[in-house]
Amino acid sequence: MIPRYSRPEMVSIWSPESKFKIWFEIEAHACDAQAKLGVIPEANAKAVWKAKDVEFDVARVDEIEAVTKHDVIAFLTHLGEIIGPDEARFVHQGMTSSDVLDTCFNVQLVRAADILIEDTKQLLAALKRRAIEHKDTIRIGRSHGIHAEPTTMGLTLARFYAEMDRNLNRLKKARKEIATGAVSGAVGTFANIDPSVEEHVCAQLGLEAEPISTQVIPRDRHAAFFAALGVVGSSIENIATEIRHMQRTEVLEAEEFFSKGQKGSSAMPHKRNPVLTENLTGLARLVRMAVVPAMENVALWHERDISHSSVERNIGPDTTITLDFALARLTMVIDKLVIYPDNMIANMNKFRGLVHSQRVLLALTQKGASREDSYKMVQRNAMKVWEEGKDFLTELKGDSDVKSFMTDSELEEKFDLGYHTKHVDTIFKRVFG
Amino acid sequence: MIPRYSRPEMVSIWSPESKFKIWFEIEAHACDAQAKLGVIPEANAKAVWKAKDVEFDVARVDEIEAVTKHDVIAFLTHLGEIIGPDEARFVHQGMTSSDVLDTCFNVQLVRAADILIEDTKQLLAALKRRAIEHKDTIRIGRSHGIHAEPTTMGLTLARFYAEMDRNLNRLKKARKEIATGAVSGAVGTFANIDPSVEEHVCAQLGLEAEPISTQVIPRDRHAAFFAALGVVGSSIENIATEIRHMQRTEVLEAEEFFSKGQKGSSAMPHKRNPVLTENLTGLARLVRMAVVPAMENVALWHERDISHSSVERNIGPDTTITLDFALARLTMVIDKLVIYPDNMIANMNKFRGLVHSQRVLLALTQKGASREDSYKMVQRNAMKVWEEGKDFLTELKGDSDVKSFMTDSELEEKFDLGYHTKHVDTIFKRVFG
Amino acid sequence: MIPRYSRPEMVSIWSPESKFKIWFEIEAHACDAQAKLGVIPEANAKAVWKAKDVEFDVARVDEIEAVTKHDVIAFLTHLGEIIGPDEARFVHQGMTSSDVLDTCFNVQLVRAADILIEDTKQLLAALKRRAIEHKDTIRIGRSHGIHAEPTTMGLTLARFYAEMDRNLNRLKKARKEIATGAVSGAVGTFANIDPSVEEHVCAQLGLEAEPISTQVIPRDRHAAFFAALGVVGSSIENIATEIRHMQRTEVLEAEEFFSKGQKGSSAMPHKRNPVLTENLTGLARLVRMAVVPAMENVALWHERDISHSSVERNIGPDTTITLDFALARLTMVIDKLVIYPDNMIANMNKFRGLVHSQRVLLALTQKGASREDSYKMVQRNAMKVWEEGKDFLTELKGDSDVKSFMTDSELEEKFDLGYHTKHVDTIFKRVFG
Amino acid sequence: MIPRYSRPEMVSIWSPESKFKIWFEIEAHACDAQAKLGVIPEANAKAVWKAKDVEFDVARVDEIEAVTKHDVIAFLTHLGEIIGPDEARFVHQGMTSSDVLDTCFNVQLVRAADILIEDTKQLLAALKRRAIEHKDTIRIGRSHGIHAEPTTMGLTLARFYAEMDRNLNRLKKARKEIATGAVSGAVGTFANIDPSVEEHVCAQLGLEAEPISTQVIPRDRHAAFFAALGVVGSSIENIATEIRHMQRTEVLEAEEFFSKGQKGSSAMPHKRNPVLTENLTGLARLVRMAVVPAMENVALWHERDISHSSVERNIGPDTTITLDFALARLTMVIDKLVIYPDNMIANMNKFRGLVHSQRVLLALTQKGASREDSYKMVQRNAMKVWEEGKDFLTELKGDSDVKSFMTDSELEEKFDLGYHTKHVDTIFKRVFG
Repeated sequence: MIPRYSRPEMVSIWSPESKFKIWFEIEAHACDAQAKLGVIPEANAKAVWKAKDVEFDVARVDEIEAVTKHDVIAFLTHLGEIIGPDEARFVHQGMTSSDVLDTCFNVQLVRAADILIEDTKQLLAALKRRAIEHKDTIRIGRSHGIHAEPTTMGLTLARFYAEMDRNLNRLKKARKEIATGAVSGAVGTFANIDPSVEEHVCAQLGLEAEPISTQVIPRDRHAAFFAALGVVGSSIENIATEIRHMQRTEVLEAEEFFSKGQKGSSAMPHKRNPVLTENLTGLARLVRMAVVPAMENVALWHERDISHSSVERNIGPDTTITLDFALARLTMVIDKLVIYPDNMIANMNKFRGLVHSQRVLLALTQKGASREDSYKMVQRNAMKVWEEGKDFLTELKGDSDVKSFMTDSELEEKFDLGYHTKHVDTIFKRVFG
Repeated sequence: MIPRYSRPEMVSIWSPESKFKIWFEIEAHACDAQAKLGVIPEANAKAVWKAKDVEFDVARVDEIEAVTKHDVIAFLTHLGEIIGPDEARFVHQGMTSSDVLDTCFNVQLVRAADILIEDTKQLLAALKRRAIEHKDTIRIGRSHGIHAEPTTMGLTLARFYAEMDRNLNRLKKARKEIATGAVSGAVGTFANIDPSVEEHVCAQLGLEAEPISTQVIPRDRHAAFFAALGVVGSSIENIATEIRHMQRTEVLEAEEFFSKGQKGSSAMPHKRNPVLTENLTGLARLVRMAVVPAMENVALWHERDISHSSVERNIGPDTTITLDFALARLTMVIDKLVIYPDNMIANMNKFRGLVHSQRVLLALTQKGASREDSYKMVQRNAMKVWEEGKDFLTELKGDSDVKSFMTDSELEEKFDLGYHTKHVDTIFKRVFG
Repeated sequence: MIPRYSRPEMVSIWSPESKFKIWFEIEAHACDAQAKLGVIPEANAKAVWKAKDVEFDVARVDEIEAVTKHDVIAFLTHLGEIIGPDEARFVHQGMTSSDVLDTCFNVQLVRAADILIEDTKQLLAALKRRAIEHKDTIRIGRSHGIHAEPTTMGLTLARFYAEMDRNLNRLKKARKEIATGAVSGAVGTFANIDPSVEEHVCAQLGLEAEPISTQVIPRDRHAAFFAALGVVGSSIENIATEIRHMQRTEVLEAEEFFSKGQKGSSAMPHKRNPVLTENLTGLARLVRMAVVPAMENVALWHERDISHSSVERNIGPDTTITLDFALARLTMVIDKLVIYPDNMIANMNKFRGLVHSQRVLLALTQKGASREDSYKMVQRNAMKVWEEGKDFLTELKGDSDVKSFMTDSELEEKFDLGYHTKHVDTIFKRVFG
Repeated sequence: MIPRYSRPEMVSIWSPESKFKIWFEIEAHACDAQAKLGVIPEANAKAVWKAKDVEFDVARVDEIEAVTKHDVIAFLTHLGEIIGPDEARFVHQGMTSSDVLDTCFNVQLVRAADILIEDTKQLLAALKRRAIEHKDTIRIGRSHGIHAEPTTMGLTLARFYAEMDRNLNRLKKARKEIATGAVSGAVGTFANIDPSVEEHVCAQLGLEAEPISTQVIPRDRHAAFFAALGVVGSSIENIATEIRHMQRTEVLEAEEFFSKGQKGSSAMPHKRNPVLTENLTGLARLVRMAVVPAMENVALWHERDISHSSVERNIGPDTTITLDFALARLTMVIDKLVIYPDNMIANMNKFRGLVHSQRVLLALTQKGASREDSYKMVQRNAMKVWEEGKDFLTELKGDSDVKSFMTDSELEEKFDLGYHTKHVDTIFKRVFG
């Protein structure tokens, strides 16, 4: 986790304090269920809750762990120090460390997912607002970086909205993937603990009971979770790349907001660099790099090995913190993006009408020219525009072959921009309903 | 694609013949819709269907493409050769190559997904059958490769069933992710083609119309698709790893089926190597390696660039073919897996009762010993078993501290295996309903 | 492997015919060494060479393998059919299949590396030629896609040369990494075969004897090999990205060569798309995707498992074939790249002198203005150019604060382009010697 | 970076204090060179060194950066606060931020590489010591997890030594890859700064001057660097996997050192889990996950974009810190590994002589039996051992077909273990010289 690319709410999910709080809740709820079953005395179950509002002493737990080399035992020892060793003696009964660790990890991932879902909603709101604002802002569409046909800035933003809306859906599914808990004992057989304890603990924490666990919750769930985050990251890169292209000196159809005090470069004061979206491109790589290790974590040996643990200690916090930051940064970029409609028009007109070649081609075909002939007529005039700087409409009007199929006014009609935007409302309806 | 790791049905989806067939269908359905709109003559639309049952001449299309360097134009030229240039002149009107290519690719992925879904169902059937067969086959559960507590072979198989059932669900969602088509023109504005054409084509091909496309269908869909396949691959590795461990010489709790004629090694005739599951481990890596490039494909420039294309020409066929083969191979392995219950028992008894230490520990606590004291009592006797080869129950009975808490018969009761299997039915119910 | 992205010479390395030829050579050389040691009769060793010029019958070997399910045994059986079963009885004595398979794989990789090294040299030649040609072709340097300071097209190409020269070096090292062979028996102890056999076979095939092998050659070598290829692929992407940017409609400083017959798009005849470099971007992803599986292959179980094999059957041919094709394609692109110096100048002048702001800033500091003040003076005039389309030099001349530090002629001197190119020769000397 | 998987020396390389110290050195050395050229006054160059032993105030720099949003400017401002604004006015003249940032990053990577190289040497020493100690400790070699032929524990360790020795070599090359610096200005043309400044700065910092840079040092170097680390990580996984297998309950040929106070599990006191090597397996995944993003960083736009920066802020520290920790942990594991020669013998004898089947097969062939017949004779007796628990030698002696080729004493001779270890010294000589 890099502090400069993190936000406090997500960071706090991964603090030792938060972790111990969740561990406590798992243990306390388990005691309740055990007491209800008559396995442990009700008084002991009740006593545990004395620690409910305690801020656990991280340094003290670390101190104990330095001796025991076991984090859960260290925590339980510390808990005993708080509520009394006698009161604490039934805590964790029948459970194994992983019941606590794995359930806690999933609680943290669920909370992280909730933030990411909220982030995505905010991004969607920004994209929608800007899409509607620029629904009819004409802009050249480009394939291969080359001018193709007109589109609108609103369509560009609506397309990002649709993509992020799919990501919202993926995040919701990813949340569901890891919203399970397990309190099933050393190898998942419930030998030492009744399944009803698991059900109680999970219900209290907003999780489903894992239908079948071993010592651990199966890691295909986590692989699917981080894969979903990787897709979201890739979409962030997609939007960031578009903005970086728009801000290029030669294009300049948009710019990231540039605050007054900000210095773009130590040496070139005129430069306004798309540093936020470039940064987002890098953050996307960081989010994506968790996907393969999360998948490598799936094949644990027998009922579990602990190879996944160090991976998750890293990618659990790092990937969610980075993605949270990236989504928020992108939202801010979209929200404040300075868009230059005039430059969009100027860019589109750079090639004197060539953009309408496709329409002319079609019109010639419809007027009876063969596909091959139409193509040749359009191509030869297009080349004059391209190579000699001529005006496309003028050239077409002067081409006797073209003339034999189309009148001047028919040609002019093909250069009308409204033709390209006539279905924008239809598409917006598809996207925004 | 490696022929030895492929099956004909999946391979055929990716043949040029299949591709041209789908291209034809897209063009023909588009003509129908165009004719209905009155954009092209109905007779021409009808004429296209003359090629309905034609096997397109791949070599001829390649020949034309060698000149035009454009695959869709080459195909359309060949189509014109079949149905007549005059009849063909309205084919592809208002469309762009990507309308055909992208919609076709998604049709292929959907068909591939259908096979993978069917494969997974077959695997699930095999896992379920074997799980029920070995529901009560006692086996030692292992964490960190070390004996932990007893479980059953049925639970192992049920756990793989549950994991693969989640994968079935992921594959269904992945299928849905890419079950869209687009016929929206050069930059996705429908400038030259009515949205109703797209709707008709998609409906005929069993796809949804992509709500908003550019020249291409957005690649976050494909990233999510290949990510799902990567998770399935990782689960295959998980199961394969378990079997490889079970077949180890020292463990020998199961073996891959070994056909009579098969030679395990050119030099060591006694060897029966788990080569199928080792192979599956490698195939999982191949499936997984498509995930990152599929994610890198998302950030196309503006309305599209063609960088994704070469990646997809590879991972489209290779990843689906490999996963299909792997799922089928795993199904066969599970189906015929030779399981050795006697060896399972022998392995479990290797450490003379140590497996029951957890129960004894709990019992001591419940009898009133402190957690720390109980731990010490169990640990010191366990060490005698481990280091001196003593019998755990005998040692416990001879420990005066233990005696002060538990009688001999109470101790014996803790060594009963039924204790560990009492919730197997509950778990099976959770998994199989 | 995708036929359209492959070249015959590299493909032929990976044909079954080539493989069997290499297998034969390994076996025949081993027989020679065994005969020399007196382990097998010299006549038998000699007899093996009867098959020296035989084209092995791939179909026949496949047929035998279908029964034996073991490829090396199938080959040896077929070899016996050719040279006579009696003559063949000492072939492979003391060896294990992996002695043949692993040594062969490395021979193939070495040959592939030789081609890749030759490819890279050709690319270097093209880059050097074009670099020298455009050594002084002025062009705006860009950071963040934004105009920074002038550079030359020659420097851009020289930089790619230097990068590819490092890659040449990496490929040579990668070749060395896998230029080893092993004929060390079932677990690498030479129990059944003398180390001198290994030395003889390796020497004959141009390999080093692997100092210590198990049944297989250690896979860290192959991981390093494919990692090197991944770096080369990434450099290809780097160059391809530059060209794609240069060919953008708004930039148009260069174009891929566009042959006369070629159609850029079925609908927009004026489009010349950078499809080759976009394709190279995708191919780079394919090359790179082999890196992680090759690394996952390193941790084989004990003296070997066969999980690496299916991975290598894929990435061995696919990655080398793809990279060979990509290097050759890039060489062709560089060789024929159409460069537009006039457009470079026009682009540079787009912002009326802003490109010289850095120099002015420095000059002001050197004339005694504080860094902060200089920055402000430059910034406020730059903003007038940026926002109001003013000319930078004119504005500076009219700024009384600037005037107090610099005369008009001093300002003019800062707008001289030669200032930026004065060290081009120095850099060229560093790169090309 | 996860504190529990880090060591202070490596961590300190990446502290803000270290970074500012290096920035300072770059700036101060640059001033010296500039003064020598007469570009700036010598007194100012000298004045800068007043800050030589200053511990820079990280909080103060952060405070300034919060306003300027530019880290290098913030640092320079703070430097001005220390040495006086007037004295500081020529600092950084002609340079761009990346001259400082990139050169600093490479200094940090070089220092990190030095530690990793030292780590690897320590690991090599441990491996060598243990290899020599167990040179003749007989152990069964396994392929596919199945017993193959005898080898020795020394050979296993020697093989890891050879692999890590190759890694040492890779790390040295990786160090060389990134041991370059650049002080070449905004786009690498040295327009505002003489190449001799770069040479001076680099020489002082132990770097080579980058032959041709843009604004940044080319990222193929860093890709190669992290790829090398990924290979080292994979080798760590390889060794860790071997130990995990050896510690399995059923194998128990070795155990990680288990300190007295350490608790293996909260519930099962007899368990000694290979948690260190499992952890190393996970750490290897973390090291490896940096490879692809580092490769994605290569293709920066034009003379640079800043997408690589966030990636490197993460993988720079995280990957080197993790690998340093992993190498040290592995060294400790190897150093203290508890090896059980008796268990090795017991495991080898588990299948009553089957391990010698290969030798018998060869002997039969040499005695004149055909390869096919020999195979059948060995196989049928081997199956009796495998399936009925018979003794291999006894069965062979009782087989009349075998008898017709070999006497009892000839058979017995084939069961001598010395046969397998006769070349151990040769191999050790190859590895250790």
